[in-house]
Amino acid sequence: MDPKEFCIRGKQMVDYIVDYRESLDKHRKVFPEVKPGYLRPLLPDAAPEEAESFEDVMSDMERVIMPGTTHWTSPHFHAYFPSAFSYPSLLAEMIITAINSIGFSWASCPAATELEIVMLDWLGKALQLPVEFLSGSGGGGGGVIQRTASDATLMSMLSARHKTLTKLGREQPNQVDGKHLSKLVAYMSDQAHSSVERAAIIEAVRVRKLPSDEKFSMRGVELEKAIKQDKENGLIPFYLCATLGTTSSCAFDNILELGPICQREGIWMHIDAAYAGSAFICPEFRPLLNGVEVRIGQVDKLLLEHHSWNFADSFDFNAHKWMGATFDCSPMWVKSRKDIVNSLKVEPPYLKHIHSESDIITDYRHWQISLGRKFSSLKLWFVLRLFGIKKMQELILSDVAMAREFEEFVRKDERFEVTNEVKLGLVCFALKGSNELNRHLLEAVNREGKIHITPTELRSKYTLRFVICWGNTRESVRFAWEYISSKATALLSSPSE
Amino acid sequence: MDPKEFCIRGKQMVDYIVDYRESLDKHRKVFPEVKPGYLRPLLPDAAPEEAESFEDVMSDMERVIMPGTTHWTSPHFHAYFPSAFSYPSLLAEMIITAINSIGFSWASCPAATELEIVMLDWLGKALQLPVEFLSGSGGGGGGVIQRTASDATLMSMLSARHKTLTKLGREQPNQVDGKHLSKLVAYMSDQAHSSVERAAIIEAVRVRKLPSDEKFSMRGVELEKAIKQDKENGLIPFYLCATLGTTSSCAFDNILELGPICQREGIWMHIDAAYAGSAFICPEFRPLLNGVEVRIGQVDKLLLEHHSWNFADSFDFNAHKWMGATFDCSPMWVKSRKDIVNSLKVEPPYLKHIHSESDIITDYRHWQISLGRKFSSLKLWFVLRLFGIKKMQELILSDVAMAREFEEFVRKDERFEVTNEVKLGLVCFALKGSNELNRHLLEAVNREGKIHITPTELRSKYTLRFVICWGNTRESVRFAWEYISSKATALLSSPSE
Repeated sequence: MDPKEFCIRGKQMVDYIVDYRESLDKHRKVFPEVKPGYLRPLLPDAAPEEAESFEDVMSDMERVIMPGTTHWTSPHFHAYFPSAFSYPSLLAEMIITAINSIGFSWASCPAATELEIVMLDWLGKALQLPVEFLSGSGGGGGGVIQRTASDATLMSMLSARHKTLTKLGREQPNQVDGKHLSKLVAYMSDQAHSSVERAAIIEAVRVRKLPSDEKFSMRGVELEKAIKQDKENGLIPFYLCATLGTTSSCAFDNILELGPICQREGIWMHIDAAYAGSAFICPEFRPLLNGVEVRIGQVDKLLLEHHSWNFADSFDFNAHKWMGATFDCSPMWVKSRKDIVNSLKVEPPYLKHIHSESDIITDYRHWQISLGRKFSSLKLWFVLRLFGIKKMQELILSDVAMAREFEEFVRKDERFEVTNEVKLGLVCFALKGSNELNRHLLEAVNREGKIHITPTELRSKYTLRFVICWGNTRESVRFAWEYISSKATALLSSPSE
Repeated sequence: MDPKEFCIRGKQMVDYIVDYRESLDKHRKVFPEVKPGYLRPLLPDAAPEEAESFEDVMSDMERVIMPGTTHWTSPHFHAYFPSAFSYPSLLAEMIITAINSIGFSWASCPAATELEIVMLDWLGKALQLPVEFLSGSGGGGGGVIQRTASDATLMSMLSARHKTLTKLGREQPNQVDGKHLSKLVAYMSDQAHSSVERAAIIEAVRVRKLPSDEKFSMRGVELEKAIKQDKENGLIPFYLCATLGTTSSCAFDNILELGPICQREGIWMHIDAAYAGSAFICPEFRPLLNGVEVRIGQVDKLLLEHHSWNFADSFDFNAHKWMGATFDCSPMWVKSRKDIVNSLKVEPPYLKHIHSESDIITDYRHWQISLGRKFSSLKLWFVLRLFGIKKMQELILSDVAMAREFEEFVRKDERFEVTNEVKLGLVCFALKGSNELNRHLLEAVNREGKIHITPTELRSKYTLRFVICWGNTRESVRFAWEYISSKATALLSSPSE
């Protein structure tokens, strides 16, 4: 395809995209009807020898792809967590792809590295993160764009492991010391994301799930208990992943309790705010972040015993969930740059550049699992500038208002109960009755692909999750409730129930 | 930004991109002149409260971003390894972003999963990979798109670790067994990519670097020696990463020797063909892959002693390097799906779907580090169909021909020497003389940003790498040689040398 043809095709694609997006409501079922294995028979067995035409490929988009696509940005998608879409982010993806520079070191693309540093400071300020996390503060902190929150969890745990093992006298990171390693223990809540357990598997450390309280929040008392027991057994607590906005029920761990304990014990506290993080740009929701930064007036006796008011060592959220950046874009901050950089530093000769030895240089490859990395900071730049903070705040407030409205619908219907404390955009709910009944309800609701929701379990209770996702409207939320309610009516009146 | 505005802005962006790409040669220095810290003073301290205009952002592209960008797809970029750009891939990125579905499980986007399965089969056939790697073969194999080769290395090592520890009686993947773990030893060549060492650090296993031969190839005799020694010391060899096309010199490990040893010892052999892999679609270069599949007529005595002719357990290459797919896109295949899936399987209730328990379902989240994943198979689909295999083969053959031409230039100039065996698109070369002299040459060549190359070290010999990158032309290669040659002349005639 030559530039002249791309000029035509690119503009056709712009039209196709606008048409796709603006007709999602009317023309597409949010969840596809296909059965496993549907796609293979629709395509040839092998790649073509000769080039095909753009028209052929685009007509196959409708014949092959769209019928099997779950439309995450449909107004009727209320499943999992939101996947953000915005036109500014799409424009940024286009220019990122066109440049296609790989920014693993400063020299490999100075603008990519330097824009990322500044964008993470912009974003950190918008979230009112503690100043120690900002690289412009002159301290040792800074931010990086990870691909997903899973990557951030993995990197923070790795940093903590390295820091602890180094302290224990293991100087070479690649010198395996089974003796110390097998004693390390990480903590997570029984509500934490599966990525914490996965990180522990990968990094070969023990992980202990602490029971959450009745609001699904991890509390200090359980952590104290676990630490005491583990230390008595000769283990070494080294890492805690606290969640702000859990996947199952959008619960918040009690960082004000957990933080001081971590600090006392030398435990790295990572904050996984994958979903909830975006909301912290609204002053209304900023108190949910307490404990990452404790502010005057909120300090209690416990806190005064500690010399720092900042308990988190690292913090991450997914801008691709609720901040208009398309997947993937997961900003992460650390209080101590050197802890993350040293945990994975390998310096091959083919990556040396003129400033390699300089202290002031950021080579982001040391901050992440992969070597290669995209120019993703352009995405944040486009989104933050073309939205502006106020508009972003309005969007989040409006989404939370919609969740509250849905919660009201549920509460007013005596057949149902709300099973979580609704703080942001997730409402957990269930029919009063058996798990089996609610399983049937979920199936009935999803069957026709008109709306899409997903389940979870809260203390073995099968529960439906209703999430305000990107592109939802008051109308689509109201439609969803009426649809769910009608399915409940049908289900409850059917002879088999 | 509403759809109407995007219709306009999107088309302006198409024009901007074509203009950027087609004038790279004339208007942009390939390497920027900026100093570290250049960018921060050019931007405000914080994100704007109110939305800014698209025009403002685009004029800042020229004021802030472009002056600090290393243009990886410029005709004058000959550094690192290529970063592929193609208009078909850009079109795919646009539609991927517009859909923005997250395909971590079959149900989360059936089309994304199923197209990926079929595309990896298309690609596997185009590379003539052993049939055991194809999921359509009915065996236990299959492919997945990893983000980068580093991710593939990490996942393959993890699969090998899990498989070995399971065999040793450690049944629960998250039950840490320091006793066995600390005895595991992975092998890599002293020429292997830094990601192998990094994977070993992350996964807490020993890694041993085997000395490569005079052609920088890892050989069987060194592996035998290491295994013998390690086993005598009570260690457990479990993994080998063999490289086809090393980063420093595009050397090929001797898989025909290494494979049978790995098979005999129960060592997982992963093939990292990050750069060279794309070339295997050309029949001309297919013999370089020998050992991944051994064909009749090439079987020697050693091979006949083994019951399988297929020694690799996993194989990965970067389609974003040399196959027209924009970053990131790293196809990986495994011979045994269950080995990769079982190594990292955690099943939270919020990810269950109607086919979760089915054996025929692929949930790609089990194949990778992160949970979230893009609809990247569309990129391969667009690229393979809009290029066609023949065109892709022509591009690769033409790049290799250009490398041969550059090699000839170097060989004809008696001041220089070629320091690698040129098999594909990388020529390693140096002035006959000291490392210091060549360091000065590199600086002189890169100083003005007219061409860009990067160095490496081969047995402590400082060496310049000249890579045929995406967008290079016969003219730009000739220009580069004349430029390098003139800098050498100036350097050699300056009084300080």
